[in-house]
Amino acid sequence: MIVVVFRSRLKTEYAQEYAEVAARIDELAATTPGFLGIKSYAAADGERVSISMFETLEAVRQWREHPEHREAQALGKQRYYSEYRLQVCEVVRDYRHPVAPE
Amino acid sequence: MIVVVFRSRLKTEYAQEYAEVAARIDELAATTPGFLGIKSYAAADGERVSISMFETLEAVRQWREHPEHREAQALGKQRYYSEYRLQVCEVVRDYRHPVAPE
Repeated sequence: MIVVVFRSRLKTEYAQEYAEVAARIDELAATTPGFLGIKSYAAADGERVSISMFETLEAVRQWREHPEHREAQALGKQRYYSEYRLQVCEVVRDYRHPVAPE
Repeated sequence: MIVVVFRSRLKTEYAQEYAEVAARIDELAATTPGFLGIKSYAAADGERVSISMFETLEAVRQWREHPEHREAQALGKQRYYSEYRLQVCEVVRDYRHPVAPE
């Protein structure tokens, strides 16, 4: 399994536009083969993190190159984010408590 | 680099005790060789995530087996967390915008 950790800080100017694009992109991600889910969190200092999970690196690659996602990435860089860090990670251990029913 | 993604939900009964133990454990982590940092975030639904970074899997192993951390882990399971999920992940790609000065 692949975990993608995307930390970001938003500029304030495009908050409404960003919210719309982000909602659309989350919807689109959900239709990507091998996509397993996404969840977003915020830190006390305003930094945000979205954690998404994929079955394989190939699924991440396909999602990264989706044309509509590509456009959103460009907007993100130009308009929405003052900074971000994206880490693509391979899961080597995965523990749950209580143990999840499979 | 290793990223550890620890998602959890807290029980309410031990909130004060938990806060003290968690603060102590974060301090202790900072003294662990190979530990690179930790940051915590919360989701709108109350789920929390702590993301920590380590240089190597060996550093993660040493931190996991630190006696005081072991005690805290046992308390976490018994008292503090209604559920958690811990994923130990190897970073395969790491992008920043703007590019970080090294």
